[in-house]
Amino acid sequence: MCRWAAYIGEPIFLEEIVSAPGRSLTVQSLAARECKSGTNGDGFGVAWYGERPEPGLFRDVLPAWSDPNLRSLAQQVKSGLFLAHVRASTGSATSRNNCHPFACGRWSFMHNGQLGGYERLRRRIDMLIPDELYECRKGATDSEALFLLALAEGLDADPYGAMLRATARLEALAREAGTAPYMRLTAAFSDGQRLFAVRYASDDEAPTLYHRYSRSRQGRAVVSEPLEADEGDWEAIPPGHFAEITADGARLRPFEPMGKAASAA
Amino acid sequence: MCRWAAYIGEPIFLEEIVSAPGRSLTVQSLAARECKSGTNGDGFGVAWYGERPEPGLFRDVLPAWSDPNLRSLAQQVKSGLFLAHVRASTGSATSRNNCHPFACGRWSFMHNGQLGGYERLRRRIDMLIPDELYECRKGATDSEALFLLALAEGLDADPYGAMLRATARLEALAREAGTAPYMRLTAAFSDGQRLFAVRYASDDEAPTLYHRYSRSRQGRAVVSEPLEADEGDWEAIPPGHFAEITADGARLRPFEPMGKAASAA
Amino acid sequence: MCRWAAYIGEPIFLEEIVSAPGRSLTVQSLAARECKSGTNGDGFGVAWYGERPEPGLFRDVLPAWSDPNLRSLAQQVKSGLFLAHVRASTGSATSRNNCHPFACGRWSFMHNGQLGGYERLRRRIDMLIPDELYECRKGATDSEALFLLALAEGLDADPYGAMLRATARLEALAREAGTAPYMRLTAAFSDGQRLFAVRYASDDEAPTLYHRYSRSRQGRAVVSEPLEADEGDWEAIPPGHFAEITADGARLRPFEPMGKAASAA
Amino acid sequence: MCRWAAYIGEPIFLEEIVSAPGRSLTVQSLAARECKSGTNGDGFGVAWYGERPEPGLFRDVLPAWSDPNLRSLAQQVKSGLFLAHVRASTGSATSRNNCHPFACGRWSFMHNGQLGGYERLRRRIDMLIPDELYECRKGATDSEALFLLALAEGLDADPYGAMLRATARLEALAREAGTAPYMRLTAAFSDGQRLFAVRYASDDEAPTLYHRYSRSRQGRAVVSEPLEADEGDWEAIPPGHFAEITADGARLRPFEPMGKAASAA
Repeated sequence: MCRWAAYIGEPIFLEEIVSAPGRSLTVQSLAARECKSGTNGDGFGVAWYGERPEPGLFRDVLPAWSDPNLRSLAQQVKSGLFLAHVRASTGSATSRNNCHPFACGRWSFMHNGQLGGYERLRRRIDMLIPDELYECRKGATDSEALFLLALAEGLDADPYGAMLRATARLEALAREAGTAPYMRLTAAFSDGQRLFAVRYASDDEAPTLYHRYSRSRQGRAVVSEPLEADEGDWEAIPPGHFAEITADGARLRPFEPMGKAASAA
Repeated sequence: MCRWAAYIGEPIFLEEIVSAPGRSLTVQSLAARECKSGTNGDGFGVAWYGERPEPGLFRDVLPAWSDPNLRSLAQQVKSGLFLAHVRASTGSATSRNNCHPFACGRWSFMHNGQLGGYERLRRRIDMLIPDELYECRKGATDSEALFLLALAEGLDADPYGAMLRATARLEALAREAGTAPYMRLTAAFSDGQRLFAVRYASDDEAPTLYHRYSRSRQGRAVVSEPLEADEGDWEAIPPGHFAEITADGARLRPFEPMGKAASAA
Repeated sequence: MCRWAAYIGEPIFLEEIVSAPGRSLTVQSLAARECKSGTNGDGFGVAWYGERPEPGLFRDVLPAWSDPNLRSLAQQVKSGLFLAHVRASTGSATSRNNCHPFACGRWSFMHNGQLGGYERLRRRIDMLIPDELYECRKGATDSEALFLLALAEGLDADPYGAMLRATARLEALAREAGTAPYMRLTAAFSDGQRLFAVRYASDDEAPTLYHRYSRSRQGRAVVSEPLEADEGDWEAIPPGHFAEITADGARLRPFEPMGKAASAA
Repeated sequence: MCRWAAYIGEPIFLEEIVSAPGRSLTVQSLAARECKSGTNGDGFGVAWYGERPEPGLFRDVLPAWSDPNLRSLAQQVKSGLFLAHVRASTGSATSRNNCHPFACGRWSFMHNGQLGGYERLRRRIDMLIPDELYECRKGATDSEALFLLALAEGLDADPYGAMLRATARLEALAREAGTAPYMRLTAAFSDGQRLFAVRYASDDEAPTLYHRYSRSRQGRAVVSEPLEADEGDWEAIPPGHFAEITADGARLRPFEPMGKAASAA
């Protein structure tokens, strides 16, 4: 399990999400509260959009809490749309290529969750990735595979449908292999214009996901855990939902990759 | 605060201390029990003696829990005398030169503790290190400074007296600066033949320190925390004591760097 | 192009190959002579056999010339059978998982060379790796893929035949894709008992490969480049040959993965 | 010897200096032409000014030629005043704290050169750094020491005089110790408003230094080596000179830290 935070709105210094708040992502890297792995020290990453259509990408293998490059970058760089992630490995090696966010073209993606029996399914999943996207397959995580499958399913034209189908393909493999829990995920992804988030699980233990508008920042954050302990107005995204996040709000749609029946099971 | 473990006795694979036990040092890097900082993820190190008089030294900045080099080295290398450490920084940067153990000639040294007001005292402390030892001053920690001061005080000829005087010099500076707690420390150090440990604090909160003979290993470990949860026979080294550790036992001497009066204060 | 050196014989400190000679592997990392890329600074690695059947594995992303861990390990560890490598990436990222040697079970493997059009063939090559070996597919190099394919072809039972068939499968793909040069390689690999090496190219530019017995070490090294400038008795392994290396000598067999005709083409 | 490049003018993407030109700093990291150490692979760094008075600082220990974070940052970040450096260690360890640029408050500084007998003088030099600046002494290089001494000499009020006096203090130590060459240096430094550069040697082998205005960028670069092989209009800063660099030009002043006589000697 990992922790992440994304932001869309007026440009702010990354630190306003990454390191300044009392329960910032950097604090969560050392002591997260709403997940089993309180320590998220297996690397970190930031993808941020600026003047170019492609995101900047900065990822490293050290714990976020002690990295001076992350601290300085977050103090110096402003962005109106960015994703930030701290990682707790569920098996894959600590390497930059396994750190989130992942980027491919204009898209960036980050993930928290697990896919049942992934290690034994990895080769079959790699085979699902089309040739033209395989050069973006740089690491060995299920997260990156989900991202590339969603791209293959048409993330550009239909972000909701593509993510739904990609999740379904992976969950189907996990169900076939019979390793429960099959699928638990929250994810955020962006094409530099729009910000999407999803919260879902094949059982009733979907990872937490919240969003909140900040008047001072004039933007909205969507996060694994609230960024301040004393802000009572963080709103939960309900399990089984997909959200397009804008500064103004979160437009929700049901997210049931295996259909209603499976979700209810 | 950090965690460490040292061993003397029949040669064993390093993993028997570093990674195999249920509460091994690697486990303590992620979740220590007997110190405030449960996470000790700011680097690690091992110093081990083999055929040469000088120790091998392997240190890196990643958390011990995820480093494949450490895991492999600990599985492959045998030694009858070694020191291993996982670090929780109290301020100094995460860099290899700030990771313990430190080595200088035949000596190796590692430390857990703090010196009151160190950051403001650092230059004055650096000035205490003699020219001929200054090339061994590679990092910026109080730990390395204590080691080099002990060497300057004659660690070779009189390990007990040298460590006592070095500790006294540093504690005197901290007392003068008035930043309590002045000194808390456990440390282990070796010249490749003998293994020494010390437990001390200027207040009544000395870090924990234990030792135990293992019949299966035919050697003795001295550790910040017991290596197995169900081994009831770990023996505490009392605060204010210096110990020479052998396979056979721990020969204790009172360690009162500021004199009896100060220790009682 | 990379540089590598392997050794079999009486146990010696790794440094006698890795860092001590005048043209040691570490020197070659900064200034190799017999290859286009004089700088081999994209990581390094050592695999060495000791008391266990599996090798110890130490790999890192820094240049070998400046890594204090490598220097210390090479001074402290003795082995009678080891592989050491310095890397010049031909495209894949600098990450530990892309550093040689690779290890899987008892086998270790390292490589210097290139496969024509690899980046575009990567997915197809990954698909050739059987499920049960895919957990050993940790990086993204052609080198690791060749190793895993050789394992799949039966490296245990028939090292010569397995390497021949694995090389043939990859060269066939490169020929089909039409990107010349199709295949250039030297490689060394070991199961902890035996040491093998191969030198081959689909054109007439096979990378260099030499071996030499050292009376003082009582062992034989097989290397990309001679370890001393003034040792005139390094013997070249001819292109298109496979060698089993022992302290006593190099038993050669022709290595023509595409058959005699293709080799002559 | 290292290589560096600085820029002042209209904001440009860092890559226009760091990685895009045919002889960019990244290219120089692998194959510099105008210095003895063609390989500058012992880390790199960038300090750039944006909306804050303090610079952003990004430094890492990998070679610049292979670092994806540097590549991405240089593509994404724009600045009208920045310093970039690739390092070839002359002895000090490869660690982030030994990478240039160094930053302290609003100032940033980078250096190429050497101080005769530095290793043996290091403690004496450290003692010259005043207490209030010692917290900025994070590494072990002569470069950082020169920077901190210049700050101590009043870099804010009198950049020229302060750098002159700091250089003189260090050169005097080297002369006293008798290890020639005493001092060779080029350096660039900035307070976020102004950009300064210096070229000097105690003998007649001052490292190279050039500057050039770019019409397309509307700014001026000052560099160790020209950024394009075919740009004939790079202007050398003569040895023994200090320059304030603006987009419009380089205002030169003689730089003779030991006085005219010594410089002539």
